[in-house]
Amino acid sequence: MRQPDQAARAAVAARASRILRPAGAFERLDEIAVWLAGWQRSATPRVDRPAIVIFAADHGVVAEGVSTVPSEVTTALVRAMREGVATASVMARAIGASLDVVDVGVGAPTGNIAIGPAMDEKRYATSFETGRAAVPDADLLVLGEMGIGNTTAAAAVAAVIYGGTAEMWTGRGTGVDEAGLARKVAVVETARARAGSRGPMEALREVGGCELVAIAGAISEARARSIPVVLDGFVVTAAAAALEAATPGALDHCIAGHRSPEPGHGLLLEKLGMRPLLDLGLRLGEGSGALAAVPLVRLAAAAVTEVATFDEFGL
Amino acid sequence: MRQPDQAARAAVAARASRILRPAGAFERLDEIAVWLAGWQRSATPRVDRPAIVIFAADHGVVAEGVSTVPSEVTTALVRAMREGVATASVMARAIGASLDVVDVGVGAPTGNIAIGPAMDEKRYATSFETGRAAVPDADLLVLGEMGIGNTTAAAAVAAVIYGGTAEMWTGRGTGVDEAGLARKVAVVETARARAGSRGPMEALREVGGCELVAIAGAISEARARSIPVVLDGFVVTAAAAALEAATPGALDHCIAGHRSPEPGHGLLLEKLGMRPLLDLGLRLGEGSGALAAVPLVRLAAAAVTEVATFDEFGL
Repeated sequence: MRQPDQAARAAVAARASRILRPAGAFERLDEIAVWLAGWQRSATPRVDRPAIVIFAADHGVVAEGVSTVPSEVTTALVRAMREGVATASVMARAIGASLDVVDVGVGAPTGNIAIGPAMDEKRYATSFETGRAAVPDADLLVLGEMGIGNTTAAAAVAAVIYGGTAEMWTGRGTGVDEAGLARKVAVVETARARAGSRGPMEALREVGGCELVAIAGAISEARARSIPVVLDGFVVTAAAAALEAATPGALDHCIAGHRSPEPGHGLLLEKLGMRPLLDLGLRLGEGSGALAAVPLVRLAAAAVTEVATFDEFGL
Repeated sequence: MRQPDQAARAAVAARASRILRPAGAFERLDEIAVWLAGWQRSATPRVDRPAIVIFAADHGVVAEGVSTVPSEVTTALVRAMREGVATASVMARAIGASLDVVDVGVGAPTGNIAIGPAMDEKRYATSFETGRAAVPDADLLVLGEMGIGNTTAAAAVAAVIYGGTAEMWTGRGTGVDEAGLARKVAVVETARARAGSRGPMEALREVGGCELVAIAGAISEARARSIPVVLDGFVVTAAAAALEAATPGALDHCIAGHRSPEPGHGLLLEKLGMRPLLDLGLRLGEGSGALAAVPLVRLAAAAVTEVATFDEFGL
């Protein structure tokens, strides 16, 4: 696995320690700048060419009544994203990020994870490779998802990887009622029991979804190309967690952008030891929480590279 | 006191309720968009012309050993800001905000509040009017401060306004040690005892500082011109709190950008019923915490005005 450029990290850390402000005053943002430098392999990190890639897919598990909205909404939202009128499109434009929407199964749902595997090995491999191939040239990568039913898949993946009760990992997604939540919990329990003690990547195949697999592929590819990544909410983080569980350190090039109110996301972040930059209660997906954090990463870089040091300022 | 445009608020709230995302998914940012619309008096709020004004002044109380750095640092930082190499300058540039630095007493310290009033009525009036006059044409205003010793003044102001112990309101500022903190607490207690039960604006004059008074003036002027304001950390919020204590509702056109780790700031925000957008542990001042929040306000507006509604999208 690729490692960060230690010289670039050290240069930015050294500069941050001499910058024209009280010691530690910008500690959290300075750490972000150091992280960015390491993966950009540059002592002058910057966010000039951010990109977001959103993976979209449908889920057979929707047949179990785990969502308030039908699978057709996945199709509609993909169209809205491509036409530039979805939330992610507007946010991407506002922060100057390129946007790609990648269909890995819209209108072609995975198997119902309450009954059998989400996908076979061939579809898993195709989804992973599609994820890899979708990573654009960028200095900061945001990964997002769209897929009605995918918080159920994310909860099942997390339950297989980390154990614990199905209730712990299962939340209301776009807003199911008590009965819907009970159905989700039952599905997660069934799916996790079937997946048993398979490995984390197998969990993505057995109880996950094509967009989760593609996200894992994209994160791997970003690592190989040393592109820093901002993770979004529960679904993206569950996909990422599989990589980390399979190979500790696999997410060193990733930070958490935003804490979702979906309870499973808080738990995942804890397991991963990640502290998100934002906590605004957003629960949309589409990469929107991570997009909201991109300006902070940009500011963190500028606040080290463009602010004078005490020396430069003659103090 | 000027009130927000209710029609603009209602229009944006109505649009937010029909936007192409699950109900409530962006609740927190939608509220920001509604707030912005009301004060911009526009159903299409936006942040195209943000501005930051930083008020700088020196404090006689520095003689009590309440800061780790000498007053000369105020002068140096003002120069750095004007030369574009301070943190606030760099952040302002990165987010496209204009920056003005206004000297209301650099090298001309207020009286030592451990001994007597910070300023007389004339200097108070001049500072307040300077603050008013400094408000530029802007669609979003950030207020910042620079003044070695001013967290002591802010703590004293808060203690006079809200009561409680001096310890509650007093923190380490740029990083005083235990002995320095004890000196700060003693000064705050003395100053507050002298100010007694004076009104909140009198507290600014008696135990505050010229930049705090100017900030209060700028907030009042922004209200008169219906310009929405993002508050920064402890010092700016203490100045703002005086206005709210004098006239409840006086800060309806203000939001909190960032929660400072200075303990008094958390208390002030609680008293004011404000929930900051960010909580990154920044403790610099210069308006930097509020500047970091400006991109979120911009995104909040775009996420309502530019995203399609279900109707517009034909759903």
